[in-house]
Amino acid sequence: MILEETNSATIIEQSPINEPRKNWRHWLIGRPLATADAPNQTIGKLIGLAVFSSDALSSVAYGPQETMMILAAAGSAALSNSIPVMFAIVALLAILTFSYRQTIHAYPNGGGAYIVARDNLGELPAQTAGAALLTDYILTVAVSISSGVAQITSAFPSLFDYRVPIAVSMILVIMIINLRGVKESGKAFAIPTYYFLIMIYITVGIGIFQLVTGRLGMVVSPPAMPEELIQPLTAFIILRSFANGTTSLTGVEAISNGITAFKEPRSKNAAGTMLWMAGILGSLLLGLTFLANHIGAVPSDSETVISQLARTIYDSRGPLYLMLITSTTIILVMAANTAFADFPRLGALHAGDGFLPRQLTYRGSRLVYSSGIVALAVIASALVIGFQASVTNLIPLYAIGVFLSFSLSQTGMARRWWKSGHLKPGEEIVEPGSTVRFEKGWQWRMVVNGFGAVCTFMVMILFAVFKFKDGAWVVVLLTPILVAIFFSIHHHYKSLARQLSLAGHQPRMRVARNRVIMPVSGVHRGTLEALRFARSLSDDITAVHVSIDPKERARIEDKWASWGDGYRLVILNSPYRLFAEPLIEYIDSLEKLLRPDEIITIVVPQFVPRHWWIGFLHSRTAETLRKLLLQRENIVIMEVPYLIK
Amino acid sequence: MILEETNSATIIEQSPINEPRKNWRHWLIGRPLATADAPNQTIGKLIGLAVFSSDALSSVAYGPQETMMILAAAGSAALSNSIPVMFAIVALLAILTFSYRQTIHAYPNGGGAYIVARDNLGELPAQTAGAALLTDYILTVAVSISSGVAQITSAFPSLFDYRVPIAVSMILVIMIINLRGVKESGKAFAIPTYYFLIMIYITVGIGIFQLVTGRLGMVVSPPAMPEELIQPLTAFIILRSFANGTTSLTGVEAISNGITAFKEPRSKNAAGTMLWMAGILGSLLLGLTFLANHIGAVPSDSETVISQLARTIYDSRGPLYLMLITSTTIILVMAANTAFADFPRLGALHAGDGFLPRQLTYRGSRLVYSSGIVALAVIASALVIGFQASVTNLIPLYAIGVFLSFSLSQTGMARRWWKSGHLKPGEEIVEPGSTVRFEKGWQWRMVVNGFGAVCTFMVMILFAVFKFKDGAWVVVLLTPILVAIFFSIHHHYKSLARQLSLAGHQPRMRVARNRVIMPVSGVHRGTLEALRFARSLSDDITAVHVSIDPKERARIEDKWASWGDGYRLVILNSPYRLFAEPLIEYIDSLEKLLRPDEIITIVVPQFVPRHWWIGFLHSRTAETLRKLLLQRENIVIMEVPYLIK
Repeated sequence: MILEETNSATIIEQSPINEPRKNWRHWLIGRPLATADAPNQTIGKLIGLAVFSSDALSSVAYGPQETMMILAAAGSAALSNSIPVMFAIVALLAILTFSYRQTIHAYPNGGGAYIVARDNLGELPAQTAGAALLTDYILTVAVSISSGVAQITSAFPSLFDYRVPIAVSMILVIMIINLRGVKESGKAFAIPTYYFLIMIYITVGIGIFQLVTGRLGMVVSPPAMPEELIQPLTAFIILRSFANGTTSLTGVEAISNGITAFKEPRSKNAAGTMLWMAGILGSLLLGLTFLANHIGAVPSDSETVISQLARTIYDSRGPLYLMLITSTTIILVMAANTAFADFPRLGALHAGDGFLPRQLTYRGSRLVYSSGIVALAVIASALVIGFQASVTNLIPLYAIGVFLSFSLSQTGMARRWWKSGHLKPGEEIVEPGSTVRFEKGWQWRMVVNGFGAVCTFMVMILFAVFKFKDGAWVVVLLTPILVAIFFSIHHHYKSLARQLSLAGHQPRMRVARNRVIMPVSGVHRGTLEALRFARSLSDDITAVHVSIDPKERARIEDKWASWGDGYRLVILNSPYRLFAEPLIEYIDSLEKLLRPDEIITIVVPQFVPRHWWIGFLHSRTAETLRKLLLQRENIVIMEVPYLIK
Repeated sequence: MILEETNSATIIEQSPINEPRKNWRHWLIGRPLATADAPNQTIGKLIGLAVFSSDALSSVAYGPQETMMILAAAGSAALSNSIPVMFAIVALLAILTFSYRQTIHAYPNGGGAYIVARDNLGELPAQTAGAALLTDYILTVAVSISSGVAQITSAFPSLFDYRVPIAVSMILVIMIINLRGVKESGKAFAIPTYYFLIMIYITVGIGIFQLVTGRLGMVVSPPAMPEELIQPLTAFIILRSFANGTTSLTGVEAISNGITAFKEPRSKNAAGTMLWMAGILGSLLLGLTFLANHIGAVPSDSETVISQLARTIYDSRGPLYLMLITSTTIILVMAANTAFADFPRLGALHAGDGFLPRQLTYRGSRLVYSSGIVALAVIASALVIGFQASVTNLIPLYAIGVFLSFSLSQTGMARRWWKSGHLKPGEEIVEPGSTVRFEKGWQWRMVVNGFGAVCTFMVMILFAVFKFKDGAWVVVLLTPILVAIFFSIHHHYKSLARQLSLAGHQPRMRVARNRVIMPVSGVHRGTLEALRFARSLSDDITAVHVSIDPKERARIEDKWASWGDGYRLVILNSPYRLFAEPLIEYIDSLEKLLRPDEIITIVVPQFVPRHWWIGFLHSRTAETLRKLLLQRENIVIMEVPYLIK
């Protein structure tokens, strides 16, 4: 215990030595971590790739398939157009990677779209980017988990009926792992991510080897082509196919949001990881699309393209087939984990700036933002249940948010380079998210980010227009609504801060008299206990009884005469058998006569039963009164508990 | 305002003149009635018959049918046995009527089984009778409403799919009528009851006329007989048939429970009504059974016997057919109303004796026991929903409770005559329910009630045994459980009264020092407001801040130095980011040092937002604290509201 004397007040500091008591939660999510333990919870490149790239990498499970799905409307001959489309998507990936590497270096404390937009474009774009990303993280969980379950049902069709419970259980398991903390979740997730990478590269490698040696066959009994009328191949179809394919790029921003989780030097580690991720993703997207076209795979909801490819390369549903499908399922589950790492962090950022409830900034016993993690799990589970774990239905909601935030973030970066170019060497602008200094080659960097901004903006418009009636309208509507909610929350906090501010505050007059009112329903030990407390407050005590039954009233008057110690007892007759109303009326009449240096204290005797269910045997008048009177200034409520056995 | 001086205390009495403010409830259930209006709400014989006999009279809709249903198992030739069985049931009705007329005269303030058993047999039989009756009232509602819906679906099979919502809506309408008060409900119910009586007597009358003139035909295309193997007609089947038929007698006790609702002279009016009811019920049961046998009606779930009889007599589903079916449906709905009159009244009796929550004794704004009425509606609706409004499934739960309470009540009456016979003329025993005086002919009266007790007891055993596996086991199990709950509630109230009793109470030492603790999360206007209130309590004030964030702590220490008026500020460091635990620990440590003349007051500054949903933007630490600290003696909680806009 340290005693330190400041101006006029004594400030005493105490630090408990004991850890919190054990309870069931520790078994589930691990022992509590002290705040001082925080800096240790960081990860290296190898684990960082596993934690933050799974969202992007897992897109290979549905990206190529969704690209081909649209082309299938123009007949099987049109499918081969998926290869040039995929090249365009990989080109877009390259642009994004270079743009985001610049962001990572500029924002070593985390350069998500929200921070970049806030520091460079202002509050409205920042909140828009944030709303878009929060929506998208929820969809990442829902889509990835649903796609993972689709892989399972490709291999084991009998599990199809259980897809919703399977999906929800997966979400809950990821939630628990994340409540344990990021380092442990990193460990738990690294092995399966690398297992997937090994399996998919082996598969693609063997496929290309078979192709080169002329031994790659065609897929045996592929799913049927869609039975709709075959349309001519138009630019419209090509663009829709491209839009669907861009869902492959969701998640590439994850690393830039999560830089603080990396070991020092953060930026360098994160940027390196980003490059690796982009290389892996691009090569897999191209390789898989290429091979799928060669074997004549048919995009379908009943069997995934990955499954068709694997059973063609491995010649049946053998052990290697099952290993690939399993690892694909697992990487999709891991993808959901990326959202679990980023959603709560972004939520905490919003909350810290006063645009979401402050509770989201509190870290739980394991140093993670527990409420954000739980909220994400709940909303994503609701989506999975609502959409019956169907990827096809969820996909049109996806990607708009991501590209909106990409675009805002790149625009913000371009603006930042412009600011940087107009500083003198040595000058700096300290912003909440980073410090802007003059940097050479700012013009070139501004062009890179500006180009990224234009490309991603165009993709977003493409997606919103071409997928509007398939479901994109939900996100187009929801985003402005969310932004409006964020701003109204912000308005509340700002107005509260003004109301509470001590600037120019004149302390109110000291209390000269405390008028105590004590509602009594009977005169017993509980009442006398309350009276004892009331006497410690003031000598101006009035007991008030609301009388419904004249017999009861007579008993109370009698007992008060012997036990009331001479204090006033007011009987309020209630011919309509109301309880609270006459009392409130009485208090109102007193309040009108109150002088500025007087207050009213309502002393409420309150039975406290040992078991909650005993509460049903007593009327909750104290509770009612509390709710009615809390709305008034100059009136305080004092509850005097009387424990009953 | 009257001021009256007693011993040492001033007692002031105030009576408001204004009526309670208007709200939506008044539109639904009528304007509030003052307690003084109570005695006017009584009814005469004509309305009394409508209100209290509908339960018994409506039994004709299912009693004969259920009697025949069992006999049908022995083939259609066995159905004619229903006539002698029905004679036995009417004989039982006669016994009950004479027994209950004696009860009505002996208990002019209401002689339900509960009161008679309580005054003459003791608490355990009384609670058993009460539990049985309460269960039975619930079943009366469920069975009558379900049977009413079955009448409707006999006439309009297309409504079958909507039977559950129809049934639940009916229950809600009856609930609202009853919440308006008994007199108005009597008026509302008299017309349909007499409409039913006229319709059913016309039907039976025309039927008998046709029979005498040889023009009564056979039922056209009756429902199919059950397809099970035809069993030989045994005494077992006859007894089961008799047991099912006794459900016709449920409700004959209603008048004896409701005597107080009658106009003076209560007993005479009630007893006369009872006789009329028994006469009508007996004649209808016999007449309907007789005619149903003559036309070859087949008991069935798809069409009620009443419907078969009516379309044979009226030769088709014409207007007279529809009028009878409608009136039968309505009388069944009215039957449910009997339960709504008696269930809350009995519940209030139990509650007044401390065997059910006291809230059941409070009368609502319309002078009825509102909580009992609402409780009945809720439970009965749940049963109707659970059993899908099927009479067949509900019937086996019915009647045991009624006959158990019949039997206990008659045994109690027999014991009362014995007591009466052993008094000297002029002597009297004042019991809570009535006054026992010597009466001539007590031996003869004792024999009447004793015989009634034996008969009803045998019927109950018969029913419990023969219907056990059909569902009677539920009631056989539930009744003792309910009785156990009643006694444990009673135990709680008795123990509470002991704990609160002022007999031999030594007032505790006066409070010499009030140690005030004020948890603060920040120093702002709300905190200063709370401090102002705290200063009115004591000079021993300690502000306590649980510190999670060192920056926040520094800010608070700073501000406290300027605004804290020199009071102590204790900083509790919380390395595990817990809030409540460190505070509770600190309070614990203070409590250990507390002297008997000291108390601790926790002053909690509390934001009171204007809209409830704003509560989500603030952590509810005050609420948490309140729950944790209410469990402690010597600690009181004072909430200082700070209104935010």
